[in-house]
Amino acid sequence: MSFNNNLKNKCLDKNNRLCLGLDIDNELLKDSSLEYMEAYIKDIIDATLDLCPVYKLNFAFYERHGHQGYKILENIAKYIDNSAITIADAKRGDIGNSSKYYAESIFEHFNFDSVTVSPYMGYDSIEPFTIYKNKGVFILTLTSNEGSNNFQKKMLGDKELYKYVIDLSNSLNTRNNIGLVVGATNVAYLTDVNKISKSLPWLMPGIGFQGGNLKESISIGEKNFLPLVNVSRGILRSGDGSITSIRNATEKYTGKIREIL
Amino acid sequence: MSFNNNLKNKCLDKNNRLCLGLDIDNELLKDSSLEYMEAYIKDIIDATLDLCPVYKLNFAFYERHGHQGYKILENIAKYIDNSAITIADAKRGDIGNSSKYYAESIFEHFNFDSVTVSPYMGYDSIEPFTIYKNKGVFILTLTSNEGSNNFQKKMLGDKELYKYVIDLSNSLNTRNNIGLVVGATNVAYLTDVNKISKSLPWLMPGIGFQGGNLKESISIGEKNFLPLVNVSRGILRSGDGSITSIRNATEKYTGKIREIL
Repeated sequence: MSFNNNLKNKCLDKNNRLCLGLDIDNELLKDSSLEYMEAYIKDIIDATLDLCPVYKLNFAFYERHGHQGYKILENIAKYIDNSAITIADAKRGDIGNSSKYYAESIFEHFNFDSVTVSPYMGYDSIEPFTIYKNKGVFILTLTSNEGSNNFQKKMLGDKELYKYVIDLSNSLNTRNNIGLVVGATNVAYLTDVNKISKSLPWLMPGIGFQGGNLKESISIGEKNFLPLVNVSRGILRSGDGSITSIRNATEKYTGKIREIL
Repeated sequence: MSFNNNLKNKCLDKNNRLCLGLDIDNELLKDSSLEYMEAYIKDIIDATLDLCPVYKLNFAFYERHGHQGYKILENIAKYIDNSAITIADAKRGDIGNSSKYYAESIFEHFNFDSVTVSPYMGYDSIEPFTIYKNKGVFILTLTSNEGSNNFQKKMLGDKELYKYVIDLSNSLNTRNNIGLVVGATNVAYLTDVNKISKSLPWLMPGIGFQGGNLKESISIGEKNFLPLVNVSRGILRSGDGSITSIRNATEKYTGKIREIL
């Protein structure tokens, strides 16, 4: 089955579009040991797996612990296995030869279901990831940060740079396994993205802590194909940060999403 | 001392501009164990350290071995320590909060001297790396691959996208620690880059295997501030791949560079 269909099925099965971002800050941990960190993440997964179709792991939060952080990434990807879709939020992208090794790493060694990639280096930096048809590739398009104004929204000839990135994404989608990263903080742009993003799933960061609009993101994304609403800090830092608080926040977001659907 | 001055001093001390890329393919190894791989890299460093001011480690070649590959990165960075400049060729770039952790990882945990970053997400994805004034940040500008034609060379208003990236790089260079990645396969563009790249060092991949022009790269880069000519496969795969062959190829490239200087 193609990645995009598998992703959609998982979302329909759980009647949800929530992607829980497992971005573990030190402040979230009662105990600074890496054993505790790993156990804590597994507890979060156990407490939310019936609701969450997708988990995203931003590598930055693991890499700062060096090789031991990568060991945790290996363990967590294995722990989730086929019970939910995993996104390696690693923002990779290099010349073809190197991207081939990154694809091998993330899809074969770590066994993630999908990855985020940066488009700056062009088609041959992304292509090596796309040849795995059951694995997904989310291409940075319109990001949720202020710096998205520097280049992404600038006119490049007749249209904005991010629209050229969507054109490239469409042309790379021959295996139905490409998605776009579209910040939910860019609601004004979502309608435009929808016009040219042909049935691609959107990974939408920026909800919660960054203040993105949940309702608009879901309704426009749903019209396109599938919106994945990523929430990290908005859930992990809710209440007293206990597993119960995280469960409650996950239920609350799920409830809001189901209402909109 | 600022990173760029430290880098220049190391290059002047060794009268060289060669950056040896330690991209270790399996094919290069007589024994597929990671212990052998680490020992082989250390042997290469021992055999070339009197000539090489800079070593670049592309993370793709290590990450495909998972957490054990990252362990090797930790060990190699420690092994080189202050005897040469190290570049973490990791092409990072994320929202500010995550980039801060990547900077912590690469500069504090792994203790690399510098990093390569992708500019697609804009200024706030790069800034967290730049606050370490003794550490360097090489920003992808004009890369050596074919995909550099997709976006980098396209007109964005009055000038090409890569020139806007250079403007941003200049404005981020308040601590004299920014550099540009400029492919040596883009000789036709080097004169243009030189016009607007104000005294930034250039990291120049594409020499050797990819067919870039050594003479032009060095003479134009030297006019600007400092060209770092990266060679990976062109040295690692020379002759029979033995340490003696690698030493000989390093001497050959050094000889050519010194002749041009």
